[in-house]
Amino acid sequence: MRQAGRYLPEYRAVRERVDFLTATRTPELAAQIALQPMQRYPLDAAILFADMLAPLEGMGVSVDFDPEPVLGAPIRTRTQVAALHELHPDEGVPFVLETLRLVRAELREDAALIGFAAAPFTLFCHLVEGGGSKDFAEARGFLRAMPDLGAELLDLLGRSMARYLVAQARAGADVLMLFDSWVGLLAPPIYRRFLLPVLVDLVEAVRARVDRPIVYYANGAATLLPAIREVGADVVGLDWTIPLSAAVRSLGQDVVVQGNLDPAALFASRAELAAAADDVRREGAGAAAHIFNLGHVLHPHTDPDQVAFLLDHVRERASRS
Amino acid sequence: MRQAGRYLPEYRAVRERVDFLTATRTPELAAQIALQPMQRYPLDAAILFADMLAPLEGMGVSVDFDPEPVLGAPIRTRTQVAALHELHPDEGVPFVLETLRLVRAELREDAALIGFAAAPFTLFCHLVEGGGSKDFAEARGFLRAMPDLGAELLDLLGRSMARYLVAQARAGADVLMLFDSWVGLLAPPIYRRFLLPVLVDLVEAVRARVDRPIVYYANGAATLLPAIREVGADVVGLDWTIPLSAAVRSLGQDVVVQGNLDPAALFASRAELAAAADDVRREGAGAAAHIFNLGHVLHPHTDPDQVAFLLDHVRERASRS
Repeated sequence: MRQAGRYLPEYRAVRERVDFLTATRTPELAAQIALQPMQRYPLDAAILFADMLAPLEGMGVSVDFDPEPVLGAPIRTRTQVAALHELHPDEGVPFVLETLRLVRAELREDAALIGFAAAPFTLFCHLVEGGGSKDFAEARGFLRAMPDLGAELLDLLGRSMARYLVAQARAGADVLMLFDSWVGLLAPPIYRRFLLPVLVDLVEAVRARVDRPIVYYANGAATLLPAIREVGADVVGLDWTIPLSAAVRSLGQDVVVQGNLDPAALFASRAELAAAADDVRREGAGAAAHIFNLGHVLHPHTDPDQVAFLLDHVRERASRS
Repeated sequence: MRQAGRYLPEYRAVRERVDFLTATRTPELAAQIALQPMQRYPLDAAILFADMLAPLEGMGVSVDFDPEPVLGAPIRTRTQVAALHELHPDEGVPFVLETLRLVRAELREDAALIGFAAAPFTLFCHLVEGGGSKDFAEARGFLRAMPDLGAELLDLLGRSMARYLVAQARAGADVLMLFDSWVGLLAPPIYRRFLLPVLVDLVEAVRARVDRPIVYYANGAATLLPAIREVGADVVGLDWTIPLSAAVRSLGQDVVVQGNLDPAALFASRAELAAAADDVRREGAGAAAHIFNLGHVLHPHTDPDQVAFLLDHVRERASRS
């Protein structure tokens, strides 16, 4: 689940020498970090190591670094929105594309390389809020107060992320993930009105240009699943708060699901960790297919040996079924 | 919804003179703040103005103030848990009880006074994390790593909050609310295992001693509703991310629901605000009863005139039905 591990000593060794930003913008380092989990564990796929907000700078947003990226000023006016432009990945994020090329060249042939982008609403939240937030109240208020401008900004973000994912596919990504980290803050009618059309367009725009499975990870989105079905992604990724069987009831039995072990389960005893993983597999059995994964990022204090145990356990169970 | 308004100029006028902590611990000021919305709007109930974490200090937790309360040190060991003790409200939070007595004396007779406490898991999150967090990963990991100690701490918090709510009822609270702000971070099996028994005991302990309706507000808890039904509260309060009709399907038609207008809707045009409020009323029509409310706190930048408009609109609609 997402990004090479802050929990791995080999990752922390790289980060002792360079900050996060430098690591993400130095393709050799970013590729090395993306490959680290593959060298340690028997994984089926590697995932790009990149900063989710990187494309914003390529759209004309001022990004400061302190030391991690924070937006210079919140985007809240028509003038500010008009000053943004669609992302041209070759110019805006060349280091991401080069990272993908390097990883794909090093990766064993039967392993997939996962590229990713933040979903339009997640970028919108950071743009309007001007940084992180618990509830992104400014962003949600913006959609209510200036619905037309909000829709325009979301559309621009959607078109830019479509270009970004297409460029990632052409640079070597075999699978494309879209992370909607804050979408669970939206009331269902607001999701349907503002997000669904943008996401449908995004998925269609990517499909028109490259043939890659698209995974849509929607965080905290239990009540949005009937609308999420209409996004049309190949796979829906889910966090640990919804039983996969309930998700399949809302999404339909023809949808492939990915997820959703609670990353906190890695802190449990091995017996309880194994039981929690078995629960996830049993819950996912009713879907068209189930890609076992965590429901969210690993906590930095996770014991790497617990990750190894989990992978062995899940592979052993899968080989028996 | 919760606490006198940061959006009200009369509240900000008080806060220009004293900090949040002083306001909550000076019963005359806290009472004045609790009564402010009643003087401005035709409301059915006032709610206590108090700091959710105040009872922790009365349980032996070191609380620092900077200027708002933050915990001195995270609680993560058996020794630290053993050093805590059950809350004795008369000694631990006398200023809260005095505030309730003052508000009840001033409040018009047909208006209800709502007392409240944070739910055990919400307090647990702050205790273990030692402060705020987006995902309370330490707290969730603690429950997995030390399940027995976690259950012991939750039980102590539950017994203490039962005492706190009983004391509030005796000091004049007509309705008792329990705010479970972070419960939506839990996987359903973890909620059932650790929280449900503590909450059932809490509700029973309060009911055994005072006769007051108990409202359980569960934030982000769409997938927990079948378990929440078993908590046995008189009313379940819900945030704006779940349509009330869907909540009623999970909770059962005999449950009273409270909520759940998106506070961001107050930033919309009056026509859209009215439509959003009408949607909430229509969605709630299938419940045993529906108490109209916001789904969460008002944003500090909310226009007080929009609140007045919303109240007039909802009252006018209710009088016609």
